[in-house]
Amino acid sequence: MAEAAQTLDGWYCLHDFRAMDWTSWKAISSEERQAAIHEFLGLVEKWNTTQNDNQGSHALYTIVGQKADFMMMILRPTMEELNEIETEFNKSKLAEYTIPTTSYVSVVELSNYIAGGGDEDPYQNPHVRARLYPILPKSNHVCFYPMDKRRDGNDNWYMLSMEERQGLMRSHGMIGRGYAGKVKQIITGSVGFDDYEWGVTLFADDVLQFKKLVYEMRFDEVSARYGEFGSFFVGNLLTEEKVSQFLQVN
Amino acid sequence: MAEAAQTLDGWYCLHDFRAMDWTSWKAISSEERQAAIHEFLGLVEKWNTTQNDNQGSHALYTIVGQKADFMMMILRPTMEELNEIETEFNKSKLAEYTIPTTSYVSVVELSNYIAGGGDEDPYQNPHVRARLYPILPKSNHVCFYPMDKRRDGNDNWYMLSMEERQGLMRSHGMIGRGYAGKVKQIITGSVGFDDYEWGVTLFADDVLQFKKLVYEMRFDEVSARYGEFGSFFVGNLLTEEKVSQFLQVN
Amino acid sequence: MAEAAQTLDGWYCLHDFRAMDWTSWKAISSEERQAAIHEFLGLVEKWNTTQNDNQGSHALYTIVGQKADFMMMILRPTMEELNEIETEFNKSKLAEYTIPTTSYVSVVELSNYIAGGGDEDPYQNPHVRARLYPILPKSNHVCFYPMDKRRDGNDNWYMLSMEERQGLMRSHGMIGRGYAGKVKQIITGSVGFDDYEWGVTLFADDVLQFKKLVYEMRFDEVSARYGEFGSFFVGNLLTEEKVSQFLQVN
Amino acid sequence: MAEAAQTLDGWYCLHDFRAMDWTSWKAISSEERQAAIHEFLGLVEKWNTTQNDNQGSHALYTIVGQKADFMMMILRPTMEELNEIETEFNKSKLAEYTIPTTSYVSVVELSNYIAGGGDEDPYQNPHVRARLYPILPKSNHVCFYPMDKRRDGNDNWYMLSMEERQGLMRSHGMIGRGYAGKVKQIITGSVGFDDYEWGVTLFADDVLQFKKLVYEMRFDEVSARYGEFGSFFVGNLLTEEKVSQFLQVN
Amino acid sequence: MAEAAQTLDGWYCLHDFRAMDWTSWKAISSEERQAAIHEFLGLVEKWNTTQNDNQGSHALYTIVGQKADFMMMILRPTMEELNEIETEFNKSKLAEYTIPTTSYVSVVELSNYIAGGGDEDPYQNPHVRARLYPILPKSNHVCFYPMDKRRDGNDNWYMLSMEERQGLMRSHGMIGRGYAGKVKQIITGSVGFDDYEWGVTLFADDVLQFKKLVYEMRFDEVSARYGEFGSFFVGNLLTEEKVSQFLQVN
Repeated sequence: MAEAAQTLDGWYCLHDFRAMDWTSWKAISSEERQAAIHEFLGLVEKWNTTQNDNQGSHALYTIVGQKADFMMMILRPTMEELNEIETEFNKSKLAEYTIPTTSYVSVVELSNYIAGGGDEDPYQNPHVRARLYPILPKSNHVCFYPMDKRRDGNDNWYMLSMEERQGLMRSHGMIGRGYAGKVKQIITGSVGFDDYEWGVTLFADDVLQFKKLVYEMRFDEVSARYGEFGSFFVGNLLTEEKVSQFLQVN
Repeated sequence: MAEAAQTLDGWYCLHDFRAMDWTSWKAISSEERQAAIHEFLGLVEKWNTTQNDNQGSHALYTIVGQKADFMMMILRPTMEELNEIETEFNKSKLAEYTIPTTSYVSVVELSNYIAGGGDEDPYQNPHVRARLYPILPKSNHVCFYPMDKRRDGNDNWYMLSMEERQGLMRSHGMIGRGYAGKVKQIITGSVGFDDYEWGVTLFADDVLQFKKLVYEMRFDEVSARYGEFGSFFVGNLLTEEKVSQFLQVN
Repeated sequence: MAEAAQTLDGWYCLHDFRAMDWTSWKAISSEERQAAIHEFLGLVEKWNTTQNDNQGSHALYTIVGQKADFMMMILRPTMEELNEIETEFNKSKLAEYTIPTTSYVSVVELSNYIAGGGDEDPYQNPHVRARLYPILPKSNHVCFYPMDKRRDGNDNWYMLSMEERQGLMRSHGMIGRGYAGKVKQIITGSVGFDDYEWGVTLFADDVLQFKKLVYEMRFDEVSARYGEFGSFFVGNLLTEEKVSQFLQVN
Repeated sequence: MAEAAQTLDGWYCLHDFRAMDWTSWKAISSEERQAAIHEFLGLVEKWNTTQNDNQGSHALYTIVGQKADFMMMILRPTMEELNEIETEFNKSKLAEYTIPTTSYVSVVELSNYIAGGGDEDPYQNPHVRARLYPILPKSNHVCFYPMDKRRDGNDNWYMLSMEERQGLMRSHGMIGRGYAGKVKQIITGSVGFDDYEWGVTLFADDVLQFKKLVYEMRFDEVSARYGEFGSFFVGNLLTEEKVSQFLQVN
Repeated sequence: MAEAAQTLDGWYCLHDFRAMDWTSWKAISSEERQAAIHEFLGLVEKWNTTQNDNQGSHALYTIVGQKADFMMMILRPTMEELNEIETEFNKSKLAEYTIPTTSYVSVVELSNYIAGGGDEDPYQNPHVRARLYPILPKSNHVCFYPMDKRRDGNDNWYMLSMEERQGLMRSHGMIGRGYAGKVKQIITGSVGFDDYEWGVTLFADDVLQFKKLVYEMRFDEVSARYGEFGSFFVGNLLTEEKVSQFLQVN
């Protein structure tokens, strides 16, 4: 058996994608819509408080194309909190006018492929903590996709030795580093939690950098031989100020 | 032809996943909702009686993400009882406000890969009986996924000799034993009953142990070369006390 | 080109799986429900007459899990009769409260892999006729699944010689014979009629025998290397006496 | 690069599969249903006129099983006409009570694998014209399925030389010729038009001949190694006289 | 690691496919329908203005078969504009009578496989600009499909050297050039944006040229060994003059 990778695990993560049922939303009165928006912004305000207390983080993005109209990404210390937030939203007025399109359950993860282990407890290291418990950036754009490492005939990631995997991941990481300052990447692990092994969430002010990064990586052996990708979602920042405008109908 | 594995088979098992139709649920009166919850808790009370009589067991968990809102796992001595419980729930008031999202039909199974056979009838062995007819724990978290053993080109589990399979399963079992006290695992066989060959249900108080266990196992040859996995579901314990709160809307 | 297998073909077969729309069913009056049940039992009575006249056969089973609530299996001498029965059911009152979940179109089939050909016309042989035009048993349980023979790289059933296929099928048949008296198997061919090449319908009084049979066969090369399986459905006998109880709501 | 096959292309073809929404259909008045049937038969009458003018052809079949209740197959000289006919049906009263289940867009195709090229313009050859612009037969039964030629590892049709493909297609065609007089086959090409590369529509008075033909061909290398098949649909002739009876409800 | 291809990227692109809910559309008054059409043509008028200002382009086509009734293809300088146009349409009256069937998010792309790099900035080259920021033609027909380059065992595009890929793409491009004047092709890249790596949109006055081009290319190694294709959509030009007629019901 190949040596298993070790992981550090941070906040639990829920990506929750929703389409709007615009027809029903338009059918109710302007007052009802205002009340629903007000209630939703109240939820976001609670999330802001949690984020200010460093007890979690969240992001709101509209999604381009029919896969969803908007996405809520929520980070919290426990799986129970994710469940509560999801249920609280589901019980809200706005949720009556949304259609769940897909979701993803995972946990922020750092692996030991790159980082060498030292003597100290990494969970006490401030640099590590900042990555395990990240405050999500307010970048203009988001990209999300789930992925697996392939286990197919001669292309079986999990049959490689730790050394081989480390070597491959090191060169893979080099590409990522070339996008430092342009793309912020958050890896969340989902083995045992959802259908793929990882979720990848990218943030950038220039949406084209997502394409450049993912395409360049595809020529790297880690992706070329061993990457299996799920659906890709791309979106634009939905600030609280823009929520009302986004939901505004005549 | 390779020698077939022998199995011991216990209680039949139904995993029943449901999403709430929150919009319709909110639309009825508080009295109707109370009556529906009361009726549902009456069903659970009957299941508790059965469990106290050691004639079956059950578990209730909320599920994180959009795949379901809650899951009922039911163990019973016969397939007919599973069908009756399912139908009784389907005819209940609460069921009108749920949307079936997926289900799984199987039977608790022990295989002869690990356990050597002795002379005695294993069905009379109390340790074996405790595993074939288990009372489900009240752990904080549940993880469920169905799986197959792969039959693909050179990676064909069912073409391996009994000795090869036993050797592989032994080392696989070692990993599981490393999680003793942290994760309780119930294997249910579903060949001839449902779309995968097995269901795996894990219980743990620390949800992260699911990820650690499943990820570590993935580097083991049994999973790495021969495992095919379906969807993963993760959830939080839904005690009877919490049912009303979970279903509470304003 | 490999020599094609020869088949004997009997009655045409429709498997029709339905979920109940319990919410709508409960919403109508008790009288309407009684009328719908009465009309449905009238259809079944007509099917009984046909069966008594040896002009076809049928079976009714409830299905465990969410894939369906019940299944009608219909055998008839012509494809037109299957279509008429299906349409007559579709126009019935009960059908308004059912949701079609899946169906399968095939024809009872015997192949020449096992049976040697003689000089006589097999369609005049009473033993053959009993298998081509079978009266379905009233066993406690049913199991249905569709399957293909694999055509994948080196595992290509249709590139094997007739001799190789006959040898493989002979040992496969031996396993089935070990279940004589426990499991009755009806093979229906669906090449040109539906998405898989065969449907397999098993009947047994002990539901566990389905699992034992299918699992044992999976280690046989015919299944291990060449079998591709669709969804599995398992159910319990729905006698006419039980129909009212099954559909009874308060 | 392998030499591409040359094709002759005739009328454009739409297969349009519909399920009936029987519940809604029953809910309207008998007069409304009569009006809807009358309007639909008027459309068919227009199609008959076109067919009599040799400007297209069409076929109506009921479909067995839940995949559809009926199928309209339409041949026309242009893609625009197919679109107009589809839209005209969609705007009709009957269409309000149908549910689109699947469709297929293609063009009648003859390939140069069999036919040697001569000097003359094949589009002027009456035998070729009869096959490119066929009047669909009124056979008792129809069978439809889409298919691809495989491109998978060593089984890659498009990497074979023209000679290899011609040799394979020749023996494949021999099987088809064995069914002359029993099965009429219309091949329509759909590369660039729909999800598979070809549609195959078979017509026969004896429905069993579909199974015999497709099964025999499956042992031929062209299908065994290179055929990838989509869903199969089988049905019974729906003459205009039978339309009212098919749609009749009490 | 293989050298990654370099791309030039132009306008962002949304393909938005919609089915009509004809039943609901017919149920409203003629005045309401006129108002909805008027509002939609107003949106198109705005898009025309943008196109006249060279700030984007768009195309409207009806789609043949059940995959959609019509398709809007929108090109804009930013992802935010695509999102706004999509949302504006979603909030319109006509959208209430449409059902989203699929969509595709991408960006106009030129690769360096063919074009040699020079010293000048290609974004300043008028020929390049005309291809990166194209005004979509008013051809009679459109064809759209998404595609991937395969990564499967020995057929792994991303493990080939730049030289091998260039050689393959050169011969592939030769086929395309044979259709100059008959088919206009727009390649849009979607790595990081949507589920496939590219979208291909073809325009032609003779719809048969789509089939001829795609089929001929399939014999080329780039497609034969390395192409993976998604769904194909084919349609007819929907001029603004025809919109009213297309949506006209009695």
